[in-house]
Amino acid sequence: MAFPPLEMTKRGLRLLDQRLLPEREKWILCTTSRQVHQAIRIMVVRGAPAIGIAAGYGLYLGLRGFRGNVEGARRRLRREADYLKTSRPTGVNLRNVLERLVEASRKKEFHTSEALKAFVLREAERLHREDDRLCRKIGRAGAALIPKKARILTHCNAGGLATTGYGTALGVIYAARAAGRKIFVYADETRPLLQGARLTAWELVKSRIPCSVLCDNMAASLMAKGLIDCVIVGADRIAANGDTANKIGTYGVAVLARAHGLPFYVAAPGTTFDFSLRSGKGIPIEDRGDEEVSRGFGVRTAPRRAGVVNPAFDVTPARLISAIITEAGVLKPPFTVSIRRFRNQLEKSGA
Amino acid sequence: MAFPPLEMTKRGLRLLDQRLLPEREKWILCTTSRQVHQAIRIMVVRGAPAIGIAAGYGLYLGLRGFRGNVEGARRRLRREADYLKTSRPTGVNLRNVLERLVEASRKKEFHTSEALKAFVLREAERLHREDDRLCRKIGRAGAALIPKKARILTHCNAGGLATTGYGTALGVIYAARAAGRKIFVYADETRPLLQGARLTAWELVKSRIPCSVLCDNMAASLMAKGLIDCVIVGADRIAANGDTANKIGTYGVAVLARAHGLPFYVAAPGTTFDFSLRSGKGIPIEDRGDEEVSRGFGVRTAPRRAGVVNPAFDVTPARLISAIITEAGVLKPPFTVSIRRFRNQLEKSGA
Repeated sequence: MAFPPLEMTKRGLRLLDQRLLPEREKWILCTTSRQVHQAIRIMVVRGAPAIGIAAGYGLYLGLRGFRGNVEGARRRLRREADYLKTSRPTGVNLRNVLERLVEASRKKEFHTSEALKAFVLREAERLHREDDRLCRKIGRAGAALIPKKARILTHCNAGGLATTGYGTALGVIYAARAAGRKIFVYADETRPLLQGARLTAWELVKSRIPCSVLCDNMAASLMAKGLIDCVIVGADRIAANGDTANKIGTYGVAVLARAHGLPFYVAAPGTTFDFSLRSGKGIPIEDRGDEEVSRGFGVRTAPRRAGVVNPAFDVTPARLISAIITEAGVLKPPFTVSIRRFRNQLEKSGA
Repeated sequence: MAFPPLEMTKRGLRLLDQRLLPEREKWILCTTSRQVHQAIRIMVVRGAPAIGIAAGYGLYLGLRGFRGNVEGARRRLRREADYLKTSRPTGVNLRNVLERLVEASRKKEFHTSEALKAFVLREAERLHREDDRLCRKIGRAGAALIPKKARILTHCNAGGLATTGYGTALGVIYAARAAGRKIFVYADETRPLLQGARLTAWELVKSRIPCSVLCDNMAASLMAKGLIDCVIVGADRIAANGDTANKIGTYGVAVLARAHGLPFYVAAPGTTFDFSLRSGKGIPIEDRGDEEVSRGFGVRTAPRRAGVVNPAFDVTPARLISAIITEAGVLKPPFTVSIRRFRNQLEKSGA
């Protein structure tokens, strides 16, 4: 099954408001880049690949109303791209997509600003379609890693809702199921925003894949009882050495997987790699507001005068990662080598 | 500071309803053993030592209305003890306290059932006072392990609210602070019932000890950043080899502490030991209802058709524990030896 969380229409970009799932399925219309920026920031749309695609359309929306010459439109394009990049700091697909769009239009000549606008929209649509293709390739590549019967732990939501419908980590699970594997998924609820409980479980129930939701702190106990065969997660940014930023809690799960001798897989497309970063140390980690933790459910759960910690991401060092599943196949350690080869492949194919 | 969560009065046992903290401080009156059983089961009162004391008073309340001869009262006493034991399965203080009360009265002669009742009440009161003394001893013993400046991670609530006012893990923190150490506490929020966010942070704020609440899945990241110096937790049952059952998530924290080279301390009185169990394998783990996870805050956070996992406790193997802090001092590995010595001490002192 596929769960497209966004749709481009003549009126503008429609986004499924993921904050309201699983109880309500409500769509929001964005007609300006400012609205797209806001939707990304407050997490109406989330998941590094989906954010990238939404930002691509946001760039077009930022340009759409422009009346002026081509040079002015080009300036506006760059300004809008810089603006949209500031919506969230950790994921790199956002930046990668925006830079690809700016770069592609820089290389081309346009006689009118209308032609430039049309080109940006076409390119954003192309990246949108491409994301779906990449996810399906990731799914097929990853399915080969999954045994006949597998109880898989995942953290956060790297599913259809985090991409353009099919998913990365969940894409692997969907492909493995389609290939006949018997799958049971344990979904970490993923505090503070509960993307695992709300989104991953929602997708899995709709896909009729049996699953159970657990509190994040229960994963260790399930591993100790031998109930988990492997872990698959998505990624928000992967450095050139394989260090991977992903939703807060991922690093802890990776440490636990290693302590219990379980494979720990990351699934992500090429747009999630930041080849310019030698290691995860350079990845900016977004801190989000206290209230996501202290009154995450509309109910105050911590006293007002207590401090709150709320990093949205953490970095899992490459040494804890068994393999990175990409559209070009499964990258194995040493990642500096396999990621360099992957980068060369991407550059040759002109991505 | 001290936070007594229970108080015995002429009318009955008053319990602070811990489910409503930190927003409301409401006390509940129990006048029957059935009400005490219910209060323990639904976690109005929680924390292994506090449950033990509450059950002691519950035993008296179960006997209070009895009209009949001494033999009848003795039978009622045993029946009520067996009944109260069924309120929660994992913590062992409950059983230990009830058996001590039954055993102490078995050894004595009574001419009237009134005399037996008075004895049970006196003994329950003695255990109540004793718990406070034990916690303060644990605090002093543990304080010696805490460096001058310490950033301490704790999980769940092993504080005044979990005992009769002073706490075990938090007792160590209170004593270390009183001894002049500079302390900062990181409190795991402790899903599903958030005892860390709601109770531990509440006690710490009231005690003016600086603290921050974090989601359980953030601890690993804080450790990796070098922000934690040691971990201290309480216990619900400790086997003869040192294996320790405690709130779900404790085991994961212990694995993380080991992976980051941090000391992991357990603080608990003698009543938390189950010397009859050779290892943690024999500890029954309570499974609690789905809704604590899937709609823990009155808001549905997981789709209705998804499964839910909700073990209330896990077992941390002795090999991950640096020391167990008791009223008789700090027990070090090998725990089979130090716990046997502790047991002998307790038996000599007639506890």
